[in-house]
Amino acid sequence: MEEKNSSLHEESRQLGKYDLIAEFAKYFPKANASTVVGIGDDASVIDPSGQQVVTTTKVFLENVHFDLTYVPLRHLGYKVVTVAVSDILGMNAVPTQLSVCISVSNRFNLKAVNELLDGIATCCEGANIDVVGLDVATSRRDLVIAITAIGECEPAHLVTRQGAKENELICVSGDFAAAYAGLLLLEREKKVFEVNPDTQPDFSGKDYLLRRQLKPEPRIDIVEALRRENIIPTAMTNVADGLAAAVMQICRASHAGCAIFEEKLPMTELTFTTLKDLDIVHTVAALNGGDDYELMFTIRQSDYEKLKQIENVSIIGYIKEEVDGYKLITGDNHQVEIKAQGFAQMQKS
Amino acid sequence: MEEKNSSLHEESRQLGKYDLIAEFAKYFPKANASTVVGIGDDASVIDPSGQQVVTTTKVFLENVHFDLTYVPLRHLGYKVVTVAVSDILGMNAVPTQLSVCISVSNRFNLKAVNELLDGIATCCEGANIDVVGLDVATSRRDLVIAITAIGECEPAHLVTRQGAKENELICVSGDFAAAYAGLLLLEREKKVFEVNPDTQPDFSGKDYLLRRQLKPEPRIDIVEALRRENIIPTAMTNVADGLAAAVMQICRASHAGCAIFEEKLPMTELTFTTLKDLDIVHTVAALNGGDDYELMFTIRQSDYEKLKQIENVSIIGYIKEEVDGYKLITGDNHQVEIKAQGFAQMQKS
Repeated sequence: MEEKNSSLHEESRQLGKYDLIAEFAKYFPKANASTVVGIGDDASVIDPSGQQVVTTTKVFLENVHFDLTYVPLRHLGYKVVTVAVSDILGMNAVPTQLSVCISVSNRFNLKAVNELLDGIATCCEGANIDVVGLDVATSRRDLVIAITAIGECEPAHLVTRQGAKENELICVSGDFAAAYAGLLLLEREKKVFEVNPDTQPDFSGKDYLLRRQLKPEPRIDIVEALRRENIIPTAMTNVADGLAAAVMQICRASHAGCAIFEEKLPMTELTFTTLKDLDIVHTVAALNGGDDYELMFTIRQSDYEKLKQIENVSIIGYIKEEVDGYKLITGDNHQVEIKAQGFAQMQKS
Repeated sequence: MEEKNSSLHEESRQLGKYDLIAEFAKYFPKANASTVVGIGDDASVIDPSGQQVVTTTKVFLENVHFDLTYVPLRHLGYKVVTVAVSDILGMNAVPTQLSVCISVSNRFNLKAVNELLDGIATCCEGANIDVVGLDVATSRRDLVIAITAIGECEPAHLVTRQGAKENELICVSGDFAAAYAGLLLLEREKKVFEVNPDTQPDFSGKDYLLRRQLKPEPRIDIVEALRRENIIPTAMTNVADGLAAAVMQICRASHAGCAIFEEKLPMTELTFTTLKDLDIVHTVAALNGGDDYELMFTIRQSDYEKLKQIENVSIIGYIKEEVDGYKLITGDNHQVEIKAQGFAQMQKS
């Protein structure tokens, strides 16, 4: 689609809203057989043919969930898909469709909307997801993005947060706190830039941290690997607000306790040294940093050999009785209580 | 649930976000067998067992889509459900589940959130809809509400906007422009109040208009009546932005034209006289006023006798060839072209 620099509102006066959305719809070809009706009707229609349907809706507000001073719109589009899709993956379901509502003010031109949609399309294409709903509306000032992600799951494979039992192993994909370290770097450079606009940010060697913050990947590979190895986790969740919140969500829903080993928390050397330079305790960042979009799940001990076949998964602890509470076992073998997060914490992600 | 006057953020510091959402979840008991997993996990799960799944997401922004100076939060909650559900009905599907994301600033206390949720719960209860997703997050200032509505439809009953054929009858439920007249009255009183805060608004005799604006009903009765009379419309849409937009959406998707008779546009006497007092041309209000949330559908002429069995449905015109365009036949038998709406129009609804 040709990119123009006119305001979105101006463009739509010429084209009409429905033609404009028809134009935008070209970003989003259909790939899934279950997609019956896509963009351009009252609602979208899916034919799951025997599968269960899994849905989640996420809302992203400018200056609450993202800061356009350092977030490129293409990356933002990519990231909002990852965030929404991660909740589908957190049920052990396969993401299949996505619906997008964007509210923009006249601060945004057509080029900006195209960049955002391009980011959304790129992430969906890589994940084989059909965008079946698209609405563009007016906001007073801030950009508002609402994403509904839809997935399919055979009933036997569906995994909720309930179901973790004593002595089962607590597993996580990937590594932690990289996105949080990336956020701290971006926020630091923003402050420097505000004082001295001539400064050029120096992020050399930190690409991985920035990518984890700005353009995280949905862990579809993990859900696929679990299917391949014939492992059905006993409980599962998306890790969006740090490991502490995730493990507590599983434990509370399962009426269980847990022990997590500090030394088992997966973290790259780069994350570790960057956090150290920033004077941040790395374990706290892993537990409460957020924005990781990794998966946490519990498995029976009998599935341990099968689990070892899956790359990029670590065992970080095990499930205990509810009365044992939620414990972090530190490197020097002390037990520390894992704490609940407040409401304010949400503003971070 | 006990109503308290503390701020939502304060309350959640005491309770924790997840306990707070668990408390709110008590508003929303489950009624549908297809609801597998509701509020409180990564995502919601539905088992449609052979039915197609219909979904839509709507975002409502304070001071764009609603004005809290005259919209009570309970009514707002009711209305956002009607608006989202109307798009499900516009596919001839039966609404079954709903997901809610509310973003609030510290301007709103727990009582306000409870009122909003109470309005949502009341509309869902009346429509037999399960609320399966609930998230409460932070906004900078304005209230932001995102609603995802989900419905079920046997494949044979699904009706899109495509499919209207020449000589078929164009039908609409209910009457038009009442909500628009209600909006004009509310806006007028708001201006009076801004000049003289001691004034009490006088809406006597205008209850119907205010109700249509503030607390519209989803037309589930019409979808049920179509099933009962064994009528499958050939094309269908929700009338959200006025009759003109709706008929053009059907015609464009169906590659057809239309003739609409001005004298057949259903309108109550109260709406007519109120618009006259306000110096508004009543036909323009019906065509472009918006906020009606009625249904428009086309039927074969052979279904005419069956259609007469359904109350509250009017035939307002018929489908023509695409080359004939979109025509309004006025009372004095002139033909006027029905025009497309621009993007700015959206701000009205």
